[in-house]
Amino acid sequence: MKLRDLAERLDCRLEGDGNIEILRVAGIEQAQPGDLTFVANRQYYSLLRSTRASAVILGSAAPEGPAEAGHDVPAPAPYGVLRSEHPYLTFARALGLFVQTRPPAKGVDRQSAVAPDATLGADVSIGPFVAIGAGASIGARTVIYPNVVIGPGARIGEDCLIYSQVSVREGVVVGNRVIVQNGAVLGSDGFGFAKQPDGTHFKIPQHADVVIEDDVEIGANTTIDRPAVGETRVRAGAKIDNLVQIAHGVSVGRRVLFAAQVGIAGSTVVDDDVVLAGQVGVGGHLHVGKGVKATGQTGITHSLEPEDFVSGCPSIPNREWLKASAVFPQLPALKKRVAELEQRIADLQEKLDECLTRLDR
Amino acid sequence: MKLRDLAERLDCRLEGDGNIEILRVAGIEQAQPGDLTFVANRQYYSLLRSTRASAVILGSAAPEGPAEAGHDVPAPAPYGVLRSEHPYLTFARALGLFVQTRPPAKGVDRQSAVAPDATLGADVSIGPFVAIGAGASIGARTVIYPNVVIGPGARIGEDCLIYSQVSVREGVVVGNRVIVQNGAVLGSDGFGFAKQPDGTHFKIPQHADVVIEDDVEIGANTTIDRPAVGETRVRAGAKIDNLVQIAHGVSVGRRVLFAAQVGIAGSTVVDDDVVLAGQVGVGGHLHVGKGVKATGQTGITHSLEPEDFVSGCPSIPNREWLKASAVFPQLPALKKRVAELEQRIADLQEKLDECLTRLDR
Amino acid sequence: MKLRDLAERLDCRLEGDGNIEILRVAGIEQAQPGDLTFVANRQYYSLLRSTRASAVILGSAAPEGPAEAGHDVPAPAPYGVLRSEHPYLTFARALGLFVQTRPPAKGVDRQSAVAPDATLGADVSIGPFVAIGAGASIGARTVIYPNVVIGPGARIGEDCLIYSQVSVREGVVVGNRVIVQNGAVLGSDGFGFAKQPDGTHFKIPQHADVVIEDDVEIGANTTIDRPAVGETRVRAGAKIDNLVQIAHGVSVGRRVLFAAQVGIAGSTVVDDDVVLAGQVGVGGHLHVGKGVKATGQTGITHSLEPEDFVSGCPSIPNREWLKASAVFPQLPALKKRVAELEQRIADLQEKLDECLTRLDR
Repeated sequence: MKLRDLAERLDCRLEGDGNIEILRVAGIEQAQPGDLTFVANRQYYSLLRSTRASAVILGSAAPEGPAEAGHDVPAPAPYGVLRSEHPYLTFARALGLFVQTRPPAKGVDRQSAVAPDATLGADVSIGPFVAIGAGASIGARTVIYPNVVIGPGARIGEDCLIYSQVSVREGVVVGNRVIVQNGAVLGSDGFGFAKQPDGTHFKIPQHADVVIEDDVEIGANTTIDRPAVGETRVRAGAKIDNLVQIAHGVSVGRRVLFAAQVGIAGSTVVDDDVVLAGQVGVGGHLHVGKGVKATGQTGITHSLEPEDFVSGCPSIPNREWLKASAVFPQLPALKKRVAELEQRIADLQEKLDECLTRLDR
Repeated sequence: MKLRDLAERLDCRLEGDGNIEILRVAGIEQAQPGDLTFVANRQYYSLLRSTRASAVILGSAAPEGPAEAGHDVPAPAPYGVLRSEHPYLTFARALGLFVQTRPPAKGVDRQSAVAPDATLGADVSIGPFVAIGAGASIGARTVIYPNVVIGPGARIGEDCLIYSQVSVREGVVVGNRVIVQNGAVLGSDGFGFAKQPDGTHFKIPQHADVVIEDDVEIGANTTIDRPAVGETRVRAGAKIDNLVQIAHGVSVGRRVLFAAQVGIAGSTVVDDDVVLAGQVGVGGHLHVGKGVKATGQTGITHSLEPEDFVSGCPSIPNREWLKASAVFPQLPALKKRVAELEQRIADLQEKLDECLTRLDR
Repeated sequence: MKLRDLAERLDCRLEGDGNIEILRVAGIEQAQPGDLTFVANRQYYSLLRSTRASAVILGSAAPEGPAEAGHDVPAPAPYGVLRSEHPYLTFARALGLFVQTRPPAKGVDRQSAVAPDATLGADVSIGPFVAIGAGASIGARTVIYPNVVIGPGARIGEDCLIYSQVSVREGVVVGNRVIVQNGAVLGSDGFGFAKQPDGTHFKIPQHADVVIEDDVEIGANTTIDRPAVGETRVRAGAKIDNLVQIAHGVSVGRRVLFAAQVGIAGSTVVDDDVVLAGQVGVGGHLHVGKGVKATGQTGITHSLEPEDFVSGCPSIPNREWLKASAVFPQLPALKKRVAELEQRIADLQEKLDECLTRLDR
């Protein structure tokens, strides 16, 4: 594709030779001639000097040429430039233009097991060894990859991608344009037991609702449990990474980002736009306010106000955590200093008493 | 179902109108007319005032009416009451009465692959795309959902539920009334390697036993490894949540509760009635005593005595951890106070020396 | 097998009766007559006194008999001895001699779905309900267990074992002698989104390469993501346990050992021979040097030099962490001591001022 055409399709201002032929999109360090790359972050501007890319997506504020960029860019820049207000987003869109996917064939594979009363929308693709239960429905253009199991009464929306080995349990509702990566489980039984007088655990039946709204993405081998009463809900546009646990009765807000191995315990409400880094744990029955952020491995043990930024276990404000963590390795030295102070103060006390005694004489 | 009949089936004392028609069981905040709900915990008594439920399960000690409850409940209570010694357990049982499951059809789906010498008990249900290996056996009334793989020689007991995408590896033994949620793996190879002189890792063959006793529940995408020698065993009544790792040679005690994302390293023995919250890690070759409890993200690095209650990494008594964690954010201030003390004591020392000098004159 | 033959096959020096018949390999505490066991670690020498094993693998430095071993071993040792330079490795090899696996039948199960243009090497074994996509290739002697899905264009090497429920996504390249445990996912989409002006997340297409080199083992339900550009690569001989997350663009070094539930965030480079214990998390865009070790639950937040040994979150040198962690529970006491010092120093100050006043008079 010519750089000129890319500029048009990506809504960018073109700088340089529009006839450059672009074959691929690549990271700036790996890029070769024929590649389009990008720099969105000021700290990587220096890489522009050495890139072999044929063209670069740059933000409006990025160096425009030798005059402005000083020693940061060679003169003249040996690459074309696509100028964008949102260079990272433009890069993402450019990638989409070069992707060559092999969508599975439309239609229902003859080695699948689709219940006679299941409803299939137009142009669905149902792979081999897919089982679809009684009364389930699959929306138009949705792709169900091989070996997926959709339980009875489950409803999957339109334009979804459900990758291999996924389980969508009975009655689970999935919106439109939802992507479920391989091995994820939607609607497994919540972990709920009532202790009996003899110490054994009576299983609380978990048959209530699970709702995954539109435009959600769910990572590989992630598990989302169904509750006994009420519902587990993942709201529109939420993005959940691999190996994440969403317990029964949890409400996940719009546009949240949960990195891999996050765990949310039962009945917790996570508001919109929350961002949890990898391996964060959130306790049960909490309320995590809108826009909260937590760094990796944070253990959230109490409810949080909107826009809180926390770290540590138990979680505290990130700023406090950073400062306290910097002192933590000095704890043994600090303890020693306190002991020395105690000794010195005892010595002082003694000498002072001596002073006072001598004064009293 | 009439409230009167529910009282009888749940062994409760009925208070109020036995003719109330109950259609559903719900949480107290979501409950609508026609719903039965419950309050087991004193802190939620106040919700009784505003609930729209038609009937409530209450403990013996719970408010009985306006005279006793003061301002906590309206007079007269606009709902029927089922009085129970164990309100939460009664709630769990009530849920079971209203559940409408769609059990898969009995029999063996024609799209399954059952080895000719596998043994199938009476009234089993084997879904499509289930593979059952040579010499395996499935007990009476057990349900194997679609796309499950049971390895050669594995033995599954009676009345089990094995959900879709589960792997039960060769020779694994599963007791009666065991529930295995979707995607769980029973009997994957333990992580055991012997370092060779050239630095590479020689795989130690992992072919010994895995035994899951009666009444165990295993969560979605949980993994239970088999050892090289000896056995991995999960004892009767243990309940294990999603994404939990049980390494090779681990012994899991009776009635333990492991929340999601817990990991137990190799050869560790966890005694009966242990409760581990989410994301707890337990080191290898340890002994965790009966009834131990650990809060979320605890890292257990040494063996624990019965009834220990621990937190933190490395784990310490919960009470100590709570207190120390409360001081942790003050570490920078504490360090500053120590530095100030050092300065003040140096000043004092100087002044005192001056005193002594003047006294000596 | 006679002990004499075992000695020969395992390259060990035989001590004792070569006619002893060995039926099984077992751990020292479980061993019964007829069993071969081992002791590789000095701290377990005392178990030699009570073992019921018929033969023991011992290192060159291990007790040779009553004269040397003092009270540690009975005289005469009631078992045969296989003497080895590497007793643990010899034990691992001995296990292999007694393993009776039931390899699945060679050939392609008639209930599989293999694309007409897929390439199958000699003597492959393809189980039931396996789906192999267009243009994929499977190397000679590789075993694909039931219900595995191999995407279009994926290439699996020779002598691999791909266990049930695994997903190998489109285009993923797997080397020779690779073992993939049940439910693992190779090549799921990386977690990459670009924020749009309206706050929603635009999915960055993730279609670049995933390469798993020779002799790698990947644990059950582990997930390995593919990147948008560049590649995710697991190098030769790396061993990865269950439920591990390898994010997009990560490079995993040769012979690394990642224990269960480890998570590596995007674009991080982990050099050769790194050992990460369970539940360790590594941040994104970091460089973890050769031979680094980290204890369980460590949170690696910055790049590490070769051979660093770290713990804690944020990670610090293990030695410092051990010492600081030992002081941590004393924080409340330390705080109290500081407050007492402040009080004492105020008292001293007062008395000293009194001294000085009296001196000034």
